[in-house]
Order: sequence, then structure tokens, then C-alpha cells
Amino acid sequence: MSRLISKRAGKIGMPAGSIVHIGERKAENVSITVIAYNETSADERVVASVDEIAQPREGAITWIDVEGLHDTAVIEAIGRRFNIHPLILEDIVNTTGRPKTDDCGDYIFVRTRYVFLDEQNAVSSEQVSFILGERFVISFQERQMDIFDPVQERIKSGKGRTRRMSADYLLYALLDEIVDNYFPVLERIGENIEILEEELTGNPSKRTLSSLHTLRREMLILKKSAWPLREVVAALERCESKLMHDETNIFFRDVYDHAIQIMDATETLRDMLSGMLDIYLSSMSNRINEIMRVLTLIATIFMPITFIAGFYGMNFKYMPELDWKWGYAAVIGVMAAVTGWMLLLFRRRKWL
Amino acid sequence: MSRLISKRAGKIGMPAGSIVHIGERKAENVSITVIAYNETSADERVVASVDEIAQPREGAITWIDVEGLHDTAVIEAIGRRFNIHPLILEDIVNTTGRPKTDDCGDYIFVRTRYVFLDEQNAVSSEQVSFILGERFVISFQERQMDIFDPVQERIKSGKGRTRRMSADYLLYALLDEIVDNYFPVLERIGENIEILEEELTGNPSKRTLSSLHTLRREMLILKKSAWPLREVVAALERCESKLMHDETNIFFRDVYDHAIQIMDATETLRDMLSGMLDIYLSSMSNRINEIMRVLTLIATIFMPITFIAGFYGMNFKYMPELDWKWGYAAVIGVMAAVTGWMLLLFRRRKWL
Amino acid sequence: MSRLISKRAGKIGMPAGSIVHIGERKAENVSITVIAYNETSADERVVASVDEIAQPREGAITWIDVEGLHDTAVIEAIGRRFNIHPLILEDIVNTTGRPKTDDCGDYIFVRTRYVFLDEQNAVSSEQVSFILGERFVISFQERQMDIFDPVQERIKSGKGRTRRMSADYLLYALLDEIVDNYFPVLERIGENIEILEEELTGNPSKRTLSSLHTLRREMLILKKSAWPLREVVAALERCESKLMHDETNIFFRDVYDHAIQIMDATETLRDMLSGMLDIYLSSMSNRINEIMRVLTLIATIFMPITFIAGFYGMNFKYMPELDWKWGYAAVIGVMAAVTGWMLLLFRRRKWL
Amino acid sequence: MSRLISKRAGKIGMPAGSIVHIGERKAENVSITVIAYNETSADERVVASVDEIAQPREGAITWIDVEGLHDTAVIEAIGRRFNIHPLILEDIVNTTGRPKTDDCGDYIFVRTRYVFLDEQNAVSSEQVSFILGERFVISFQERQMDIFDPVQERIKSGKGRTRRMSADYLLYALLDEIVDNYFPVLERIGENIEILEEELTGNPSKRTLSSLHTLRREMLILKKSAWPLREVVAALERCESKLMHDETNIFFRDVYDHAIQIMDATETLRDMLSGMLDIYLSSMSNRINEIMRVLTLIATIFMPITFIAGFYGMNFKYMPELDWKWGYAAVIGVMAAVTGWMLLLFRRRKWL
Amino acid sequence: MSRLISKRAGKIGMPAGSIVHIGERKAENVSITVIAYNETSADERVVASVDEIAQPREGAITWIDVEGLHDTAVIEAIGRRFNIHPLILEDIVNTTGRPKTDDCGDYIFVRTRYVFLDEQNAVSSEQVSFILGERFVISFQERQMDIFDPVQERIKSGKGRTRRMSADYLLYALLDEIVDNYFPVLERIGENIEILEEELTGNPSKRTLSSLHTLRREMLILKKSAWPLREVVAALERCESKLMHDETNIFFRDVYDHAIQIMDATETLRDMLSGMLDIYLSSMSNRINEIMRVLTLIATIFMPITFIAGFYGMNFKYMPELDWKWGYAAVIGVMAAVTGWMLLLFRRRKWL
Repeated sequence: MSRLISKRAGKIGMPAGSIVHIGERKAENVSITVIAYNETSADERVVASVDEIAQPREGAITWIDVEGLHDTAVIEAIGRRFNIHPLILEDIVNTTGRPKTDDCGDYIFVRTRYVFLDEQNAVSSEQVSFILGERFVISFQERQMDIFDPVQERIKSGKGRTRRMSADYLLYALLDEIVDNYFPVLERIGENIEILEEELTGNPSKRTLSSLHTLRREMLILKKSAWPLREVVAALERCESKLMHDETNIFFRDVYDHAIQIMDATETLRDMLSGMLDIYLSSMSNRINEIMRVLTLIATIFMPITFIAGFYGMNFKYMPELDWKWGYAAVIGVMAAVTGWMLLLFRRRKWL
Repeated sequence: MSRLISKRAGKIGMPAGSIVHIGERKAENVSITVIAYNETSADERVVASVDEIAQPREGAITWIDVEGLHDTAVIEAIGRRFNIHPLILEDIVNTTGRPKTDDCGDYIFVRTRYVFLDEQNAVSSEQVSFILGERFVISFQERQMDIFDPVQERIKSGKGRTRRMSADYLLYALLDEIVDNYFPVLERIGENIEILEEELTGNPSKRTLSSLHTLRREMLILKKSAWPLREVVAALERCESKLMHDETNIFFRDVYDHAIQIMDATETLRDMLSGMLDIYLSSMSNRINEIMRVLTLIATIFMPITFIAGFYGMNFKYMPELDWKWGYAAVIGVMAAVTGWMLLLFRRRKWL
Repeated sequence: MSRLISKRAGKIGMPAGSIVHIGERKAENVSITVIAYNETSADERVVASVDEIAQPREGAITWIDVEGLHDTAVIEAIGRRFNIHPLILEDIVNTTGRPKTDDCGDYIFVRTRYVFLDEQNAVSSEQVSFILGERFVISFQERQMDIFDPVQERIKSGKGRTRRMSADYLLYALLDEIVDNYFPVLERIGENIEILEEELTGNPSKRTLSSLHTLRREMLILKKSAWPLREVVAALERCESKLMHDETNIFFRDVYDHAIQIMDATETLRDMLSGMLDIYLSSMSNRINEIMRVLTLIATIFMPITFIAGFYGMNFKYMPELDWKWGYAAVIGVMAAVTGWMLLLFRRRKWL
Repeated sequence: MSRLISKRAGKIGMPAGSIVHIGERKAENVSITVIAYNETSADERVVASVDEIAQPREGAITWIDVEGLHDTAVIEAIGRRFNIHPLILEDIVNTTGRPKTDDCGDYIFVRTRYVFLDEQNAVSSEQVSFILGERFVISFQERQMDIFDPVQERIKSGKGRTRRMSADYLLYALLDEIVDNYFPVLERIGENIEILEEELTGNPSKRTLSSLHTLRREMLILKKSAWPLREVVAALERCESKLMHDETNIFFRDVYDHAIQIMDATETLRDMLSGMLDIYLSSMSNRINEIMRVLTLIATIFMPITFIAGFYGMNFKYMPELDWKWGYAAVIGVMAAVTGWMLLLFRRRKWL
Repeated sequence: MSRLISKRAGKIGMPAGSIVHIGERKAENVSITVIAYNETSADERVVASVDEIAQPREGAITWIDVEGLHDTAVIEAIGRRFNIHPLILEDIVNTTGRPKTDDCGDYIFVRTRYVFLDEQNAVSSEQVSFILGERFVISFQERQMDIFDPVQERIKSGKGRTRRMSADYLLYALLDEIVDNYFPVLERIGENIEILEEELTGNPSKRTLSSLHTLRREMLILKKSAWPLREVVAALERCESKLMHDETNIFFRDVYDHAIQIMDATETLRDMLSGMLDIYLSSMSNRINEIMRVLTLIATIFMPITFIAGFYGMNFKYMPELDWKWGYAAVIGVMAAVTGWMLLLFRRRKWL
């Protein structure tokens, strides 16, 4: 449940812009990593406080990666330093919000959700926010994770075009990592559906049904992040801010294509799941039908002849058939006839 | 029912602008609280009649909070004092209306529904309307409630930015309280769904089904308030009235985000509920299947051997088997064989 | 059926503008009432033919109310007199059409459906059309009804603002009556649903199911009138004709709000009905399940012991147990053991 | 099937504009009728080849009605004569296409489907295309039918306004016939649904289910023609071609209203059908429930007493009850008690 | 599964524009065929490497057909030669993408999926991409197939208008082949549905259900390619690039019509399939009902008389009826009466 409905109740009655961390505390400490780079060099530093973030050299781009959101003092310090509106800061520390994009003039705020498989192999998601400024990008994660390591690597090694491009390209590169990470999750769910499907057509059990249910809930989680993701990327692509350069537009369009693909895949998986439930119900009623047929067959054959046997088990004094010589043989004959007739009837109605 | 379909039948045939209170009378008396404030001071007074509302000092903003809508004379007096169109007054006292926004030039009318849990812990809703003027906000509630207490507190204490801002910011602050109050309701429903889900997968009873039904109806109530809420806030955000200032726009956008989140959560909960009904039906047919299997197993094993026993209970004079020495043993053997064969058949069809 | 699909087949092959009455003939005679009024006076006359409609005095507004549409000669005479396009006349006499608005320059044509409960307390609807001209409104009803009596009363008594306003306000007042009459119908359906719901959760019978079905069909009738009603009112509100004055716009917006509310309520009722069918099906499968459990319990307990009894009812000569002293007691013991074991098994599987 | 999915496979690999007849050959010969008319006179001729189509007199309008589409040579000749693009000719002879409108500058191409009841009283449809030029209309039908006879009659007799109007009015008149012919089909389906409904609530059989299925497929056929029909007429109404005159616009709007009405009716019928299936399923589970109750009642009453009877049919030597004087009476008493208790239990659970 | 969810997981963390082949390797070698043509001549050559692609003569159009996408070196060489953006090259070699159109200024990129029946007669799809330049078209297929053979043939033979038209017409001709190839697949599925339908109404088996399931999945595959196909063609039709000439617009509109028709057919088939599942479930519950009736009939008739027989099989010493002269006859009479009464009851309840 807690993964589907956000807990915000604790904040009622607070004034707007109250920077209160909402959600689980997932990290021990807040860690701030500053990477400053230009076309020729890159420099990475872990700083202890916001004040240590140096003024970037002329022409350099700074990427400030904040991991851990529970210490609102740190977030507020960043807000003061980079002149960010309190409502935006509020959005950053509320980890239950919906993905969105806000163009605030001097900077663009982007909130997304990163989807991953947790230790129990279940679909989980965490909030990742970005502030894109003229020459800087600040990324906020709930705790230390390694999704952005490849980007870091590329900046440090100078591979790829990141170092030659403007700050919005860095935002693209980070968003691209988040979007790309949806695919393994979708694949895992796809595989689970495949396994479930074989179980369903083979020998469905109660466990199958509850797996189906679990998958449906995971699809709800995915849908909740995947659908607004498309809007976020679309807003960025169409954005007419001076912060977004024409040359990066094709890259955002590429991310947009992937976001659409994720939405499509999500819908396809949901379609498949709902189809599977139909199939399950049908095959259940099929089985009941089959069992009923057997039961009816057995009852229909044995009830009449059991009655006949009981009939001649009566202890009436005067029952002439009992004394007949061929009485026993005749009763066996009648029983055989009744059985045969019943079987014929069943075969004619195609129940056998 | 009464909570889902509004009762308006009593008003047929009345001319437009007839100010008739529609809905339950929920308050004893009408209470009018006037709070006048500017950047430096705030002043709260409870007035006995509309005439007592003083002319606000230069530069001050007045918030008039009316609690209780059944006394139409009071509403009409406010209408005359603030020059409000009779149709708007009609909308204020009709407590069954749909949330909406009307830009009437000199003032903006906003009608919303406040959602809360009543004494029976059921979802309930009441109408709250607002009139936003140049330097005043009038709020109309069906009865005395404490939702706006935090705003009142902040004005009196001077905390937050309310006292420094224009009247539309006050409207925002009040709307924000209403929107924020949806979250605990959503959380409560979410928790109930969680509990129900465990019941469903564990040991569903007739009560589970009726809880499911109750939850579905509560979701209908929520949906009826939550969907138009989004429209109301969107209309305010996009509003080009001179009453809405640019600097408050970001706050309304924030409320809008929350309204969308509420709609999203509502839809997610509805999805979950409908999924649960599917699961319930499936698990029911699962159980019927299981029980049928047991019944068929028992019938299929005992019917044939009961027949055999009955057969040799017949009282025919001439039944040679009865006199055989090994007749009894043979019949036991036959019975064992039939039982064994049946069990084998069941196991082969995977019914066991 | 006839209430849901309109009968038009009889008109195939006729040229456009053929004024043929389609639908049931509901009135004996056509009755024409002419009400001429201005701010100071009002005058009502029942005229025998269209020619008797007097030229209105300077500044006066004329409301011509036609009741009964089967006499096409009368309709044609009105058409000639007020210069109305034959296609519009065709629309007026075809009582099976869809609600719509047509701005024809000199006049505006509005077709709506009035919804009411007939003698059998079933939802019924009739067509009401309007022609709005510069200084006149013509209303066409299928037969004499009293929906417009309140408006007539207000004009005659001079209460309300009708006499001070232009002709479009009269159209609004009439439309408002039609819209307001939806509410008692919705309330009646809402109450029926409430009753049905109690039956469903209590002791559903075949009659419950057929009531459910009847309600669904009534909702279809309602939906067919309610949805286009919204379009009609929206078209009037947005209409830029010179016939619609700015000061009446707020009134049409008010009707529009009510139309939306009707649509909302219709959808809510439909949602509830479809939810009830789900609940019905679930509770049915619940009951089958319960009954099956009892049947299986009985069969599972009695079949084995009945077999044992039958077994010792066999008449074999050599059955040593029969002669044992404790044979009888032992067999009772075995039966008790089997029953106990079965009950235990059932309890363990939670079937008891 | 063939009525729902069009067969086009035979055309793969052909260049664009290959004029190949797709569909069944329904007519023996191609028949071309030419009607030339102006305000004062009308002249009808059946021509043997396209070359015989005379140059129309000054001011006259020519209607060329082609019946039979299998002879592509004729179609090509018409194409050359009236300068029509090969792709349009391809569309004319492909009788499996979707209704559409193409404004090609000098002429407008309209493709619709005519819906009728065939000999087996089943819903069938055929393609009818039109080319509207400055002073001519060409209509293409799959075979000779009499749908356009009323229009022909009106032109020849000079009744109605067709002879006074431009060519687009002729197109309207023809389209109107096609649209009007939907109504009897809808009425027939409506009546069938009514009959089916009575069967369903009365005594549903296997045949009822298959009728339901047939109706659903007919609704699919209708929907496939009715939905694009609306688009076709809407496109014509909004069309800004010089071929469409202002004075005919009101007529196309009228057809548009009818097209909407057809769509509405189609949707209503589909809603009713899907509702009927739900009712069918519910009443089925109702019946199963009822039968199960009877079965359980019988089994629950007779199984225990049959056991008791069997119990005292055992042949143990030592069974003291058998020798008791009141043993027989006592056992009857016990049986009566068990039966009474069971009946009580059933009544209490409301199963009786 | 693998056919519905694309595998992209292997690419996480790579920089944008990394040209990595995603999907199965379906061809042995990459084969490049170059066809250069103008109005008077056409020349086809198979080249070994990209460098061999000659500079086209003045006025000629070049069609480069690349079959096999696993060798990224070849794709990169083409990218360098024709100055294509790395992201587009990435899209070409990722064979799991969604159909789309990208207007990149100097060239237009089109990605579609070709649908066909594989060796097992199952629906399969492969990606086909196109680059349309000023005077060239490059087509990329996953492996050698013969879909484009007819176009090749027409170019070489000079038939049709391809050689007289610009490069965008060639793109149209190739797209047209892809679109046309959907129809035989749709027809095959239509036929399968027809067969299944007969099975369903006749004698449904477990196999029927799994066929239904297979068809549903094939419809999902089709839908995934067919829906974006419409968008692709619509984008091309509306495209305002200088590469798209006015005279080819009518051809793209034609392909668009076909794409719509494919979407329509896909939806119709999906509707039919979901209708069939409903029918299946209904007929299943019908059968269960029928079988239950037989079972109940048998049980209800034989249980009471079997009890009576058992009753008089009791061995009580004092059972006066046993000694009566007419006891036996009386008991037979009672049994007959019970049976008759039961049959009457059944007939009255219409269960027989």
C-alpha cells in the first residue's frame, strides 16, 4: 500500500514552502559530490557542506549530486546558494510527489522517479529531482545509488560528448540513465508473466493467482511513474527556455521515444495480465465443468442400480421375484440395461 | 445514497436567483468571524450581523469567515454589502453543487468540497465556497470546523508570508488546507484496502464483500469531489483576472500539483479495488473447484462400492456367490480394486 | 425498446424539409397560447389559429406556446409567419430527434428533451423545442403539460426579473425548468438503487435482477437526453448571436452548471449500477460456494458410513465379523472414527 | 467473417493506381444512367458506353449513375472523361474500403456504405461512392438497387427543390437516402433485441445465446459503417471547396444530425447488448444456485436417514436394538427428528 | 514474451549515439544493393562495401537497400557517407524500437515494422527503416526478404510511374508494400477466428481456449505495430519538408487510408475476440447448468426411493408392514408416487 498512496498527512496546516522531508529516511548522511568540468578537464570533489562548493571556473559546468534528502538544513542551504524558490525545495524533499517539470525562469526543476528491483526482486521506486541552471545541474537522490556512475565515468574519462556540451546535455544524460533503467524492470516483469502463463495453462494453483495479483500491483507502481515520465520529457523537449539549446533537442527527443516505448510496454503488459485473468477464469469454469461431468456420470449410473439392489434387499414377506429361479439373473440384466442406456444417453449429449 | 445524488427537487419552478438553502442544516447559528490584517498587525472579531463588518483600514486585507448557511437572510445581507450576483448567492447556499470557479469581474467565486472522515470513520464531504475580492476573501462553510485554524494562527502570529501578500494568497492558503485534507482520507482508504486485501487472499467472508462495496462507494464520493477540484484549481491558475497576481501563481501551481496527485491516487485506488473484485471472483471459483473435486472424489469412490455392498444385500433365493466359500473375500477384493482404480484415474487427471 | 431507438423508417425517400410528424400522437388538439408582456404589463390569450397571433406592441416580448405537434398545418403556418426554414420545422415535428442547437441567423433553434416519471413511475421523455427570435420565443411541446406554469405565473404576476429582461432570458427561464425537472427523476432512481442495494446484500431474488435491468435501461434513456443537453446549453452559452445578450450569459452559465451536475449524477448512478451487478455476481458465487460446502460436508460424512452399513448388510454366508460378539460395537466405533476424521479434515481446510 | 475483414491480399505488389476490382462481383453488366436536368426540364437516358454521355446543355446538371463496378474498363473511361486521379478510381472499385471524403480540387470524392437487410434478414452493406464536380455528380453502386429511386422520381417530376439547386444539393439528396436507410436496420435490430430480452428473462436457451452473438456481430458491421459515416458528413459540412455552396450547408448539417443520431443509436444498442450478456450470466448463476439448493436439500435430508436405514439393515448377530419392541418406532422417530432438524436449519439459512 | 517486450537492458549506461545492434542476428552477411535510376534507365548493383556506392549521375535517384543490421561498422560507414546523426544510426540498429518518423532537415528517418506469418504460421514482425534524402532512399531490413521485389521489378522494367517521380515517391512505394502486407495477416487471423467461433458454438475444448489466448497475443503484436504505423504515415503526409513533393501527397494519403483501415480491422478483430470469450464463459455456465439439472434430477428421484427401499431392508424384529400381504405392492405404489411427484415438480419449475 505504502508504495501506492503517498503519505502526506503529517503536513496538514503547515504554511506553503515549509521544507519538511516526507517519506522514509533512506540514507545515513547527506553526501554532496561536486564535479566541475569543461572540454579539457574534469574535477570531482566530495564536500562536507554547501559552503564548500566553489565558484566554478569560467566556462566550466558544475554537477552537484546530493544523496540523502532527510537533512532539510542542507537542502535549504542549497536553496539559498542557488536562489531556488521554497516551494521547489519543498517538492525536492517530499519524496512522494508526482513526476513533473517546472520552468522557473532562471532554472528548470525536474522531478522523476527511478524504478528498480529491490532485494526481494520486487519493483521499487525512488525520487530523483534535478535543477538545471545556466551552467550547473543539481541532482537530488534519496540515498546513494550507482545509476549515475556511467555518466560520471564518461565525464572523468572525457569519452562521449558530455564534456563538449552545455549543462542541458548533462541533464539529458542523467535522465537517459533513469529512463534506460525502466527496461530491465519491464523485462523482469515480462519474464514473470511468461512463467505465470505457463503455470496458468498447465496447472494453476492458488499461488498462481496471488502472483497474478502481485504483478498487477507492480504494474500499477510502474504506471504511476511511467505515465508522468512521458509528460516530463515531453515538457522538456517542447520547453522554450533559454537553458535548453537547440543542439540537445534531438537527444531529448530520443529520451522521449524511449519514454513512449516504456508507456507502450507498460500498457501491453497490463493488457496481457488482464487477458490472463480472463483465461484463468475460463479455464477454471472449464475444470468445474469437467469435474461436474464426471460426478454426474458416476451418480447417474450408480444411483439407479443402487436403488434396484436396495429394492431387492427389502425384507417383505411377500416378494415373488425373490423366489423366482431367474430373478437374480433378471435383475443383473436390468442393471446392465440401465447402465448401458445411461452411457448411451451421455454419449449422445456429448458429455462423455 | 443521499451522499451521492443531490436533492434539489424542492426547488423546481422557482425563479433564478432564489436564495434557498439546499441540504442539511448542520449548524445551530450562523457565526461570522472577521479578520483584518496588514503586514504589521492582525485583528480578529466575531460579529453578530453583517452590518458590523467594519470598513477595512487602508491597505488592510479582510477575511470574513461565515459558518452556517441555513440563514439565507445573512447570506443576502453579505450579497448586498459586497455587491454579489444573486445566482452566486444561490450557489453558495445550495450545498449539493459541483465544485466550480466563476470569474465575475469584480470578484471570483470558488466552490469546493472539503473531504473528511466522520464519526463513523466514513468518508464525508461538505461544501466550502469562497469569494475573492480586491482586498477581501469571504469563506462560507456549512458549519463550524477547524480546517482553517492553521491559517488563522499564521495570520495572527505573523508567521509565514500570508500577512505580506495580497488577498489571492489568502485564497491560496485556504484552498491549500482543503486540498491537504484529502490526503489523510486517501491514506485511510488505502489502509482499509490493504486490510481487505489480506482478508481476500486469506479467508474471505460475506463481510469482506460488503466492505469492498462500501469502499467502492466511498471512492465514488471522493471521485465526485476530487475530479472537479482539479478543474477548479486549474481555472484559478490560468485565470487572467486582475485579482490574481503573478507572484501567487507559483503557489496555485503547487496546489494544482497536489490536486493532480489526489486524482491520480483516487484512480489508483479505484484500479486496485476493481482488481480486488476480480481476484475475489477468481478465488471463489477456485474454492468451488476445490470443493467440487473433493465431492467428486468421495462420490466416485463410494458410489460403486456402496452399490456392490447393496448388490450382495439382495434377498434373492438363488444367489450362488453368497454361498461360495471365498465369496466374501472376493467381494472385498473387488471393492479394493475399484477404489484403487478410481484413485489412479483421479491422480492421472491431476484432480488429487 | 421503442423508447430507445427512434422510429424514422416511414420517412425514407421523402425530400428534405418534408414536414411529417414522427412519433406518437399525444394530444387531442393543438393548443396555442400567446403571452405578450413588457415591463409594465402581461397579457395571455389562447388563439384558435396562427393568424390570430397579433403583432406585438412596440417593446413587448411575445411567448407563443404550442402544445401538440401532430397537426403539421399549424406548424407550417407558424413557419410561414415567422419565416422559419422547412428543415427546422421538420426537426420540430420529428419528436425522436437528438437535442441540439442551431443558430439560423434571425432566430436560434433549440431542441431538448423533458424527462419525467410517467403513470407507471417509469422514466419517460418528451421533446420540447424552442425558437428564439429578436422579440419572441416559440415553444413546442408534444402535449399539454404543466412544466412551464411557474414561468407563466411569474410573468403574469410580474415577480422575478423575467418581465424586465429580453427574450433570451425567457428562453433561459424555460430551459431552466426543463433542466430542473431532471433532478426529481434522478432522485427517484437514486432511491430505487438504494432499495435494490439493500435487497442485494440481504436476500436477492430473480426480481432484484430484473429491477437492476430495468434501472439500467432507464439510465440509458436518461443518458440519451442528458448528454446532448449539456452540449445544447454549452452551445447557447458560447453563442455569439446578437439574439443572446451579455447580461443573460451568467444565467445560461448557471443552467450549464446544472446540466453538468445532471451528467455527473447520471454517470455516478451508472457506476453504482454496474458495481451492483458485480456485487450480485460475487455474492451469488459466494452462495453457491456456501451451499456446495454443506453438500460436500454431508456427502463426505455419510457416504463412507453408509457404505460400511451396506457392507455389513451383505448376505454372504461366510462373514466372520457378523458373528463376533463385539462386531456391532466395533463397526459403530469405526463409523464414529471415520466421521470424526472427516470433520477434522474439513475444519483444517477451513470448510466448516 | 468476410463481412468484417476486407480481402485485399490479392493486390500486394501492384503499383499505386492499379484499378483492380476488389470484392464480390454483384452485377451482371455495368449499367450507366444519365440524368440531365435544369430548373425547367429533366431528361433520363441509359447509355451503353461512357462515350455516349453527352455534353450537358448550358446550365444543366448531370447525374451519372453507374451500377456495377467489376468492369474496370468502364471506370477507367469515366476517369479519363472526367479527369479523375487513378488513386480515386482505385478507391471506387475497391469495395472493401472505409468511408471517406477527399477534396481533390476540381471534384470531391465521397465513399460511403449503404446498409440494408439481405434476403436472410441479416445486416449487409454495400459501397456507394460519389464524385461531385462543378455541374455533375457521378454515383457508383456495386449493383442495381432502388435506394436512389425517390431522388430520380423527384427530379423527373420536378417536385422538391432539387431541380432549382446546384450539384452539391443532388449529392446531399443522395447521401440523405443512404443515411435514412440506416434507420429501418436499426429498428429491426432494436426489435430483435426486444424479443431476445423477453427470452432471456423468460426461458433462455442455447439459441438465445447464439442470437445474442449474431446481434453483436451485426452491431460490429453497423459500427464499422456508421462511425466513419459521421466523419464523412462532417468533412462535407466543414468543406471549404467552391463546389459546396452556402445555401446547401444547412442540408448537410441536417444529414450530419442524422449521422450522429445513427451513431448514438448504435452505441445504445451495443450498451443494451452488453448489458444483456451480463443479465444472462447473472440469471445463469442464479439458476445454478437454485438447482444447487434443491440438490443440497434433497441430499442433506435423505443421506442421514438412508444411513440410519442401512445401519439397521446390517446383519450382525448381536444388535440389541433390533430385538427391542419399540426399536422400529424409535428409529422412525429418530429419522423424523433428523429430517425436521435439517429443514429447520435450511429455513434458518434462508435456503428454502 | 520476447516478441512483446523489447530487450534493451544490455545498453544501460552507454552514452547516447552508441551504435549497438539490439535484437536477434537474423542474417549471415550484410548485403547492400544499389539501384540507380532515372526516367530513361535503371541500373542495379550489389556492392561489397559502402565505399563502392558510386556518386549518382546527374538527375538520377539512388535506392540503397541494406539487408542485415548486425554489422554496425557498415551502418556507421553509411552514416558517415550520408552524414546521418549517430542517434538515428542507433535507432536503425535497435530492432526493438517503436515505429516513428523524424524530420532531420536534410533527410527524413522513418522506422516501421513489417508484419508477416512465419514458418509456424504465427504472426511475426521485423523492423524496416528508411532514410529519405534529396535524391536517394536508403532502406534497412533485418535480413533478406522479398517484400520489395515488386518495386524493384517495376523500376527495372520501367512500368508504373516510379521512374518518372522523385525520391519520396520511392519511399511511398516501399511503405505501400509494407502496409499492403498487413492485409494477408489480418485475413489469416480473421479466418482463424472464424474457425474458432465454430468450435466455440459447437464443441469447445481446452485447445479452443488456448487458441483464443494465442490469437489475443497475436492481436497485441499486431496492435503494437499497427497503431504507430498510422502515426508514421500521418506524420509523413503532414510533413512540410522540402523533401516531400506536393504531387506525391495524394499517394501518402492513400497509404494513410490503408493504415486507418488496418487499425480499424485490428480493433474489430479484438472486439470479436473479447466477444468470443464472453460467449465461451456464457456457454460454459450454460453447460454446467445443464449438467447440474441432470444430476439434480437423478438425485432427487432416486434418493427418496432408495431411502424407502433401505427402510424396508431394516432387520427389526417388529416391523408390521413386512408381514402385510399388500406391503410389497404398497411400497412400490409409494415409490411410483414419489417419483411422479418429483417429475411433476421438475416440469413445473421448467427444469426438465
